[in-house]
Amino acid sequence: MDRERVVEWLEGGSVSIPKVLLKHYADIGLNEIEFLTLLHIHESIGSGNPFPTPIEISNRMSIDGTACSEVLRSLMKRGFLAIEQQDVSMMICEKYSLRPLWQKLASLMFETVHEEEQQQREQSET
Amino acid sequence: MDRERVVEWLEGGSVSIPKVLLKHYADIGLNEIEFLTLLHIHESIGSGNPFPTPIEISNRMSIDGTACSEVLRSLMKRGFLAIEQQDVSMMICEKYSLRPLWQKLASLMFETVHEEEQQQREQSET
Amino acid sequence: MDRERVVEWLEGGSVSIPKVLLKHYADIGLNEIEFLTLLHIHESIGSGNPFPTPIEISNRMSIDGTACSEVLRSLMKRGFLAIEQQDVSMMICEKYSLRPLWQKLASLMFETVHEEEQQQREQSET
Amino acid sequence: MDRERVVEWLEGGSVSIPKVLLKHYADIGLNEIEFLTLLHIHESIGSGNPFPTPIEISNRMSIDGTACSEVLRSLMKRGFLAIEQQDVSMMICEKYSLRPLWQKLASLMFETVHEEEQQQREQSET
Repeated sequence: MDRERVVEWLEGGSVSIPKVLLKHYADIGLNEIEFLTLLHIHESIGSGNPFPTPIEISNRMSIDGTACSEVLRSLMKRGFLAIEQQDVSMMICEKYSLRPLWQKLASLMFETVHEEEQQQREQSET
Repeated sequence: MDRERVVEWLEGGSVSIPKVLLKHYADIGLNEIEFLTLLHIHESIGSGNPFPTPIEISNRMSIDGTACSEVLRSLMKRGFLAIEQQDVSMMICEKYSLRPLWQKLASLMFETVHEEEQQQREQSET
Repeated sequence: MDRERVVEWLEGGSVSIPKVLLKHYADIGLNEIEFLTLLHIHESIGSGNPFPTPIEISNRMSIDGTACSEVLRSLMKRGFLAIEQQDVSMMICEKYSLRPLWQKLASLMFETVHEEEQQQREQSET
Repeated sequence: MDRERVVEWLEGGSVSIPKVLLKHYADIGLNEIEFLTLLHIHESIGSGNPFPTPIEISNRMSIDGTACSEVLRSLMKRGFLAIEQQDVSMMICEKYSLRPLWQKLASLMFETVHEEEQQQREQSET
């Protein structure tokens, strides 16, 4: 019995977060509730439910569905989350896309590089 | 341009392997080609293609499609891999299931525990 | 240059969270700030810094060092986090242990199983 | 007892492999035994043993220590693996570095991009 439960956990697997995101979510302007909301959506997409409802998301969180709707709205408005349309067997469905999040992260990284380069240049000039 | 490529990698994400599987795949009777074949299937299921062809799998490997078919047949015969049927919008589709793999892994773990317990009992008795 | 940065990200790697923890952190009594504090400690241990300071942790978060100290104290008091001592080349060092977190998670899982079994038993009896 | 074992698995955690590496290890010239040898080293570094012996590595594989030494030699010669020296409390220790692997992977990615761009340019010119 317990063995069957362990099999379920192994089958369930893990979610991977790039360390660069874990270390820099605050730098790109996310607080903990917003970051975890995006992570729940990321997991949900990977599990075949690409458009979870605010209630489904908030059931795993310390906030309720109304607060979760507010967080989702704010994330979309500030450019961390988008809704896309997809065709599934002749029906048009909506799904979340985290591409804006990855774009912000990549931008931060490249900016950081350029700032460091510029600082090094300025230091070597003086 | 390069930034767009980095966004794709971040969006692509990672595959997680439980350390207990990485450490014990040989103990449950898998060689490297067989273990990676299962890992490619695991990744393919998570990416929404639950029944990749031998050609699709072998394209990522150092073996060809014929050899891959042979590996898949052997994995199913020896109880590491199964094919299940699922209903997708009125059509019956086939998909791979790795549940047999996780079951073998869980069994190994519980056996190891019991052997260790038995050894401790025998040692404390003498 | 950008290529070198990408190499660093690849080398940095990812942190894996078992889906069972992501789905149930709220069920074992953690809010988002507490869960991410534990996750930052988890990442820090894996990166060879097993006893990060509240300032180091809070630098990656939306809270400051004082608030982070308070969160750490509360997590230890409520049994999610522990401090252990280890010998490193003749010096005694302190390090965090997340074992209490994993124990709470495992307990939740086994309780859930037993509750479900009991419910099934009661349903089959009536 | 079984619960304690489950706690150990959860504590052990998972290893993350970027999907881009899983999909392209063959494209950068690795076979399955070589790729898994690198993965075992990756896991070992993350677990605080940055210079595992060929015997330690081969114990988890279907090959023996002599064959594993041969694989390690070949990986270093072909530029997938390097040995670095580090100072640990006044002693000089050796450790493996996978940086060459990530560099090869990043190179492949950027080449692929440039080839695709060139193809598109050639197509738009004709």
